[in-house]
Amino acid sequence: MTDILLAHPNMSPIRGALAPRHEVHALWEYESSDTFLSSHGGAVSVIVTAGENRIDTALLGRLTNLRLIVCVGSGYDGVDVDWCARHGIAVVAAVGANAKDVADHALGLAIAAWRGIVADHDFIARGEWQAANRLPSRRTMTGVPAGIVGLGSIGRAVAHRLSALDMPVQWWGPREQSDAPFPKAASLIELAAESRLLVLCCRADASSHHLVDAAVLEALGPDGVLVNVARGSVVDEDALIAALRDGRLAAAALDVFATEPTPADRWRDVPNVVLTPHAAGLTTDTLRAMIGLAVQRVDAFLLGDEQDRGRVLSASVAAR
Amino acid sequence: MTDILLAHPNMSPIRGALAPRHEVHALWEYESSDTFLSSHGGAVSVIVTAGENRIDTALLGRLTNLRLIVCVGSGYDGVDVDWCARHGIAVVAAVGANAKDVADHALGLAIAAWRGIVADHDFIARGEWQAANRLPSRRTMTGVPAGIVGLGSIGRAVAHRLSALDMPVQWWGPREQSDAPFPKAASLIELAAESRLLVLCCRADASSHHLVDAAVLEALGPDGVLVNVARGSVVDEDALIAALRDGRLAAAALDVFATEPTPADRWRDVPNVVLTPHAAGLTTDTLRAMIGLAVQRVDAFLLGDEQDRGRVLSASVAAR
Repeated sequence: MTDILLAHPNMSPIRGALAPRHEVHALWEYESSDTFLSSHGGAVSVIVTAGENRIDTALLGRLTNLRLIVCVGSGYDGVDVDWCARHGIAVVAAVGANAKDVADHALGLAIAAWRGIVADHDFIARGEWQAANRLPSRRTMTGVPAGIVGLGSIGRAVAHRLSALDMPVQWWGPREQSDAPFPKAASLIELAAESRLLVLCCRADASSHHLVDAAVLEALGPDGVLVNVARGSVVDEDALIAALRDGRLAAAALDVFATEPTPADRWRDVPNVVLTPHAAGLTTDTLRAMIGLAVQRVDAFLLGDEQDRGRVLSASVAAR
Repeated sequence: MTDILLAHPNMSPIRGALAPRHEVHALWEYESSDTFLSSHGGAVSVIVTAGENRIDTALLGRLTNLRLIVCVGSGYDGVDVDWCARHGIAVVAAVGANAKDVADHALGLAIAAWRGIVADHDFIARGEWQAANRLPSRRTMTGVPAGIVGLGSIGRAVAHRLSALDMPVQWWGPREQSDAPFPKAASLIELAAESRLLVLCCRADASSHHLVDAAVLEALGPDGVLVNVARGSVVDEDALIAALRDGRLAAAALDVFATEPTPADRWRDVPNVVLTPHAAGLTTDTLRAMIGLAVQRVDAFLLGDEQDRGRVLSASVAAR
C-alpha cells in the first residue's frame, strides 16, 4: 500500500524523479482503468496529478487505500476536495507557487490585447505596414480602471503589476479579505461596469462556474478587455465568443479554455483574441520548483516518519 | 512669413486643426521640393513634423524665414538640432509626453518575447496544441536582471514597471543622472553582460548610432532578450538578425527599425522576434494630447504676443 498512481500523461516529467524510490504506475499505459484497478488498485496510497485534470470520484472510490492526492500545480479544481475530505483523503497543491509567473503572463496578455501587439506583429508579417498606414488606434492604459476577480496570491501579484502602470485597481471575490490592499467592489457586475480591463485570477469550483457570463461581459462593455488566467470554466466561452464577434467586447486574452487543448477552429474567425496554451504558470523554473515540492511531499509521506507525514497532511487544501 | 509647412504625409491628422487659422502647405502635394520652395519657400516660418522623419538641412537652408520646427512626437532625431541652433531656428518636441505609453508597450514587448506570447498564439492558431504537446520551455522573469539603456522619462517608466516584476534593474547612458533611482553600470558592455533583458530607451543621435553592435549582443548572450523602443539607428540591425539566426541571442522585440516601414521579407525567417510598427508612443489619447500641444505651440508662436513666443522658444530642445 505504498504505490503511486500518475493519472495523466502530462505527469510523465515527474516519473523519473519518483521511480528510483517508489512503485509508480502510469494509468494511461493500462488498457483501461478497470485493468489497472483489478491488478494494482489496492496498492495505491498516493495519486500525483496536475490538479486541473479531472479525476473521477468513481475511480477514487475504488482505490480503497488511497490517502493522499498531490497536485503538482497550484490548482486543484480537477479534484473533488469535499468528497476526498469525507473519505479521509488529503489533497495538497503548490498553492501560490507560480503566482508571479502567472501574474507576469497575465500582464503580458493584458498589454498584448490592449495595445494590439499580436495584431501588429501579424500586420508587419503580412507586409501591410506602409508609410501612409501606420497610425494605430490603440488607447492608453494610463489611468484606465482595472478589475481583479479573485484576490489570492495571483490576483495580488497582478494588481501590484497593474498599479505600476498607473491603473487604479479594484477587486471582487466570493470571500472577504481583511488585509486586502485594494478596494473591493460591491459585486462582480459592478466591478465589470467600473473596469475596462478585467483579469480573472479566481479559484475554479462549483461556485465560480460561468461566473463571467453574458451579463458581466455586457457590463465590461465594448471598450472592455477580458484576461483569463484562472480556469476556462469561470467564463461562459460561447457568450464571450458571441460578444467578441458582435463588437460588444473589445478584446480577450485567454490562457485557459472551456476544453483544453482548445480547437483552433473555435477561434478562427473570432476577432481581437490573444490565445496561449495554459502556459501562464509553467515556466521551466517554476515547474522545476513545483515538481521538486511534489516529490518532496511524496517522499515525506511514503518514506518519512509520523512527523513528516503530519506536515504533508497539514498542507491539505480542504481546510482553506 | 507666417506660413506652415507639413513635411511628411503622416502629418495629415494635424492639418485640419491648423488650417482654419493658418496658411498650411503639405510638401508631399507638390511635384518636388523645388516647386514648393520657388513658390512658397520664403513665406514659411514654421515646420510641423513627426520628429523622427529626416528633414534635410539643404531644404531648411532654403527656407530663409524659418524660425521654428515643431516636432509632434517626443523625439527629434530627424532634425539636425545643432545646425538649427546655429541658424536661429528653434526646435521643440513633446519630450516625455508619451513616456508611459511607450513604457507600457516596452513592457508588453518584453513579456511577449520572454514568455513567447506571439509564438504561443500562432501555435494555437496552427492547431498544434495537443494534450501531449503543451509544456513550454519559457523561463521565469522573477529575479532576472534587467538593463535600461537611457534613463530619461521613458527609461525610468520602464524601470519602474520591471521593478514591479521583481526584476533587479541597472541602467547605462551617456549622461550622468544625479537623481537616478537605479544603479548605473560601468559601461554598456557591462550592463549587457550583467542583464538578460536589455531595453533600449535612449535618444537617437550621432553618438548612439549602432550603439548596440555585435559586441553588445554577444555580451547579452544566448539567453538574452533585446527590446527596442528607442530608434532603429541605435541597433546594428544586420548584427541583430545574424545573432538571432545563429541562436546567439534568445529573442528580440522591436518597435523601431533601421528603415521604416521595415520590409516583411527582412524578418521572414528570423526566429524569436516580436515586431510592432513604431506604435509604442502612439495611443489615440497621447496622440491627441501631442497634437494639441503642437497646435497650441504653433498658435502661440504665430498668433500670440511676445511673451507667448518666448514661452515656445524657451522649450527648445537645443539647450538640453
